[in-house]
Amino acid sequence: MKKAVFFDMNETLLNLSVLKTEFDKHFNDAYVLKYWFTKLLHSSTVMGTMDAYKNFGELADVALENLFFENDKPLSPETKSEILGAFKKLPAYADVIPAITILKAHDIKVIAVSNSSLSMIKEQLTQAGIIALFDSYYSVDDVKKYKPFKDIYLSVALQEGLQTKDIVMVATHDWDLFGAKKAGITTAYISRKKEIYNPFYLQADFKSSDLPELMQQIIAYNN
Amino acid sequence: MKKAVFFDMNETLLNLSVLKTEFDKHFNDAYVLKYWFTKLLHSSTVMGTMDAYKNFGELADVALENLFFENDKPLSPETKSEILGAFKKLPAYADVIPAITILKAHDIKVIAVSNSSLSMIKEQLTQAGIIALFDSYYSVDDVKKYKPFKDIYLSVALQEGLQTKDIVMVATHDWDLFGAKKAGITTAYISRKKEIYNPFYLQADFKSSDLPELMQQIIAYNN
Repeated sequence: MKKAVFFDMNETLLNLSVLKTEFDKHFNDAYVLKYWFTKLLHSSTVMGTMDAYKNFGELADVALENLFFENDKPLSPETKSEILGAFKKLPAYADVIPAITILKAHDIKVIAVSNSSLSMIKEQLTQAGIIALFDSYYSVDDVKKYKPFKDIYLSVALQEGLQTKDIVMVATHDWDLFGAKKAGITTAYISRKKEIYNPFYLQADFKSSDLPELMQQIIAYNN
Repeated sequence: MKKAVFFDMNETLLNLSVLKTEFDKHFNDAYVLKYWFTKLLHSSTVMGTMDAYKNFGELADVALENLFFENDKPLSPETKSEILGAFKKLPAYADVIPAITILKAHDIKVIAVSNSSLSMIKEQLTQAGIIALFDSYYSVDDVKKYKPFKDIYLSVALQEGLQTKDIVMVATHDWDLFGAKKAGITTAYISRKKEIYNPFYLQADFKSSDLPELMQQIIAYNN
């Protein structure tokens, strides 16, 4: 029986698409949000390869400054805090509570593991109304290496007294699951949008576009 | 006196913006090309952190397949080879030949160091009409780790019998220069578009938006 499920947060549990409304106020371009987020992810991975670290909010800020700068648009403190404010208030997908309820019924620990800072994680889970469902939550700030470096997966396992074989990592990002799998953890991919799972990454053990159904696959495998 | 200048190729020497014409045939979105290239870079860095390797063309292909898939567009072999064909025929920026001519006059070695495969590098330099200016060129294929991992910078230095203190790396990518600098190499940033140099990366020793002027800075520093 698996003892714990680790959840990624942004895009996996929380719907990032509401941020699009914020970006639409400034840019007339459907891909701007994706570009910003991908550039942010790239910078977080680059920092890791260079043994450097700044928290995710600081990197997000640089990517945002850059986006406005390259479009010759001013980025006022008000605009910045509006966008950051929206990031803090991302809604949970409708299938999150039903999915976690299934895990609770099987006494499986529910743990959030995110690239965001601990205070951001707490705020996001609170605003989304799901914090009470989590046994604990961890930030990469602890280890100063972003996912998909193996450090955070192993550090959380250790702090929770878990062996990697007892854990499933759930994410909608193939690169996150690549890292978890490489660390020896079972992986489950939740498809949140039309996207190809990179065929060159280690593949997920379970896949679904419905989170409760994905949890049922994990439970079924356990028994 | 610096003995060699390493040049990044895509965007640094070769103008990627002509690819935009290809993307514009399929997408009505100014940020699609940037998103594709950034996602490609992210995947190359992720592969490195996981000790996995596929060549840049294979990763570019996956990112392209994904882009068409998520837009519900078919990607025919013809379209794919049109886009890849354009990538092989990127023109050199007008300031490349004058800049390299300056280095030649000072007996400084001119070496291309790229994430692309060796055959792709050869084809790109040939199509751009600048291959005769290069003393040699190297692909990350040699070390199976992408820039900005330090492997390729150090491997080229070794193969060329150079000490890192005798080399300047030139690129328009802050993350590439971060890697070179971390490897002990002097760095020079050529600004090709409006963009913020990430303040959390190691900063470049030289900066300019004009390549010959950047070479003059390197020469002046030497003497």
